[in-house]
Amino acid sequence: MRQFKSLISFDEAQKIAMNAVKPISRVEKVDLQNAQNRVLASKIRANFAVPSFDRAAMDGYAVKASDTYGAGQFTPKLLKVVGSIYAGDFPKLNISQNQCAKIATGAKLPKGADAVVMIEDTGRENEDVKIFKPVYPEANVSKKGSDIYGGKVVLYEEEVLNPSKIGVIASLGMEIVEVYEKPRVAVIPTGNEVAEVGEDLKEGQVYNSNSYALRSIAVENGGKPERMAIVEDTFESLKKALENALSNDFLVLCGGSSVGKRDLLVDVVENLGRILFHGVQIKPGKSLLLGQINDTPVLGTPGYPTACLIDGYIFMAPMIRKLARLPNIKRREVRARLSRRVVSILGRQQFLTIKLREGEAIPVLRESGAITCMAEADGYVEIPANVDLVEKGDEVKIVLFR
Amino acid sequence: MRQFKSLISFDEAQKIAMNAVKPISRVEKVDLQNAQNRVLASKIRANFAVPSFDRAAMDGYAVKASDTYGAGQFTPKLLKVVGSIYAGDFPKLNISQNQCAKIATGAKLPKGADAVVMIEDTGRENEDVKIFKPVYPEANVSKKGSDIYGGKVVLYEEEVLNPSKIGVIASLGMEIVEVYEKPRVAVIPTGNEVAEVGEDLKEGQVYNSNSYALRSIAVENGGKPERMAIVEDTFESLKKALENALSNDFLVLCGGSSVGKRDLLVDVVENLGRILFHGVQIKPGKSLLLGQINDTPVLGTPGYPTACLIDGYIFMAPMIRKLARLPNIKRREVRARLSRRVVSILGRQQFLTIKLREGEAIPVLRESGAITCMAEADGYVEIPANVDLVEKGDEVKIVLFR
Repeated sequence: MRQFKSLISFDEAQKIAMNAVKPISRVEKVDLQNAQNRVLASKIRANFAVPSFDRAAMDGYAVKASDTYGAGQFTPKLLKVVGSIYAGDFPKLNISQNQCAKIATGAKLPKGADAVVMIEDTGRENEDVKIFKPVYPEANVSKKGSDIYGGKVVLYEEEVLNPSKIGVIASLGMEIVEVYEKPRVAVIPTGNEVAEVGEDLKEGQVYNSNSYALRSIAVENGGKPERMAIVEDTFESLKKALENALSNDFLVLCGGSSVGKRDLLVDVVENLGRILFHGVQIKPGKSLLLGQINDTPVLGTPGYPTACLIDGYIFMAPMIRKLARLPNIKRREVRARLSRRVVSILGRQQFLTIKLREGEAIPVLRESGAITCMAEADGYVEIPANVDLVEKGDEVKIVLFR
Repeated sequence: MRQFKSLISFDEAQKIAMNAVKPISRVEKVDLQNAQNRVLASKIRANFAVPSFDRAAMDGYAVKASDTYGAGQFTPKLLKVVGSIYAGDFPKLNISQNQCAKIATGAKLPKGADAVVMIEDTGRENEDVKIFKPVYPEANVSKKGSDIYGGKVVLYEEEVLNPSKIGVIASLGMEIVEVYEKPRVAVIPTGNEVAEVGEDLKEGQVYNSNSYALRSIAVENGGKPERMAIVEDTFESLKKALENALSNDFLVLCGGSSVGKRDLLVDVVENLGRILFHGVQIKPGKSLLLGQINDTPVLGTPGYPTACLIDGYIFMAPMIRKLARLPNIKRREVRARLSRRVVSILGRQQFLTIKLREGEAIPVLRESGAITCMAEADGYVEIPANVDLVEKGDEVKIVLFR
């Protein structure tokens, strides 16, 4: 019987895993429309000022501020209205002393004017307007470049593009942005018992569900999963499959990571590269394997669905995020009381899947071969390796899947 | 001067807005690979049992449980090994009394066997194996249908497809799922001053940045934004643009929602349908307009970027989620101390944009015309309408944008 050489701790495994991935450096140009959640590969510099002209920040009258000095509720100043300016107009007017122009928010300030009196502080009288309140120069005016001055760096490399950052880039008129490529993650199903989804299931077979779930986690974390063919459990097929997949940034295998006679992944990775760890003190998900072939990380996940998915969330997801240069996300957490007593195994960090119902944390207890276990769970409780019992009614912290 | 008839409260506006949208009922079929975050439109029923056969849950030996009774560390039972079964095999073996077969996790249990002895509890001796521990019937066996029995409903309508649910569907061999269509959100930029991104900016113009930001928020919340041409500020153009866009599920306009002479949206919506509210007691984002044309909601957002984006996050996003049948998300919140005193306006709920630096909440204070304000902010603090002052050092709750 083959054995795990020695199981390493969860913390150590995480450290090794994160050190095994390097952020990718390939860049590509994408349309700003499709740049959501992408990571900027170069800084964005304004090649003109925003706004590109002095503009009214309020609806009102564009005036010379000095013409309004001394105005009051009972001593209004009377100015002659010489025109109206709307947003988008290119005003040809020139405001002289004791003149003004009606102006709309966002419209370019006409020559000669240096302030805007809010419409609330005025009263119209035919060709004239009464100004009831003085303004200082630049009052209610957004000066050219007040938002972004020409040449300013508005966004930096490695910033993740969210709606407002996309808005800023659009405000500079840029249609195309340079972003880091999404890391290509080859998800490789293995096992003679695995049948492709859509095909007929033969006696003794199960469908290739793990690779669907892992590809979905990869997408969620900024990866570009590549769908790969099912590989049978022989040294040569597995070796060929890994070699063929090495054009990707990350190889993730479903199944074959344990120590059974047909769990050949460890041998193949050892043959092509090196093993970083094999076996982690967690439950489920113990038989996780990490290796490197050239510089490419290779993660072997267990064939059992719950174990595979936990390893996908706990190990694969943060590794992909680092590859993609996305910040690690802190999943949402809630607190609730455990609905029943749970016994854990000393020496293994347990990820106990939990269903939340009316504020109670109900353990979803299934063997790790059950695919429905994770689907029913809202999240998991981490039970540290040195705890062997959590009592019914104890408050626990649930990390939510979404 | 035109005026807002009367500003309604934030809470009332939210209620009206949510009542104005009905979840869409159109469905479509998508490939399971692309079903991430989509909403199931029909239940998923298993048309066979999972597993579809009794299988070994552990590596070990498939036995008749009764042959192991009385086994102990010093009184092992000796069984004859008559074969090996791997996952994916279709065993033709039949286990008779005092016989067993080596079996791998996931492999089909051979006829005659009713339990598996874990390999750790055995010792091999040529053709025989010593059993050191008795097992009861069905020990270490995953029974046919133990995960999903044939005919079981595993997922229900309106469930949102996450990685594990996608895994469950794949385990049933289904390649195609029926989901609700994404709501089509027409984002319509308006204003003579607005220039399309990628074109030359003329004097007095600004780029169409708001519609990029709003489309990005729409994508983030399960909507399918439609890019629309910029509409000029005339009653007829606006009317035509709205009429043309009515094939969508939701019309969102950027600009033209205020009460200036060229803010014609209120007139056009009144002409084609009805106004639900115009003006909300919030800052920024006050000049928000909501109407309905036939049954289609029409949201008019202010032209000023910060105001537009706040309305996009606070109103448009939850409306789109309801259309899409996605659960409303509770954004992540953190607590921090305010870096400076902030004065608010009584009677208006303020959304104060905040930058987090070293655990301090630094207000990003800009006029609402500034596009950079939102881009620099990590989130916002809600200052209720009845609060006019928050002191430096006060602990505030920041709602994070991501």
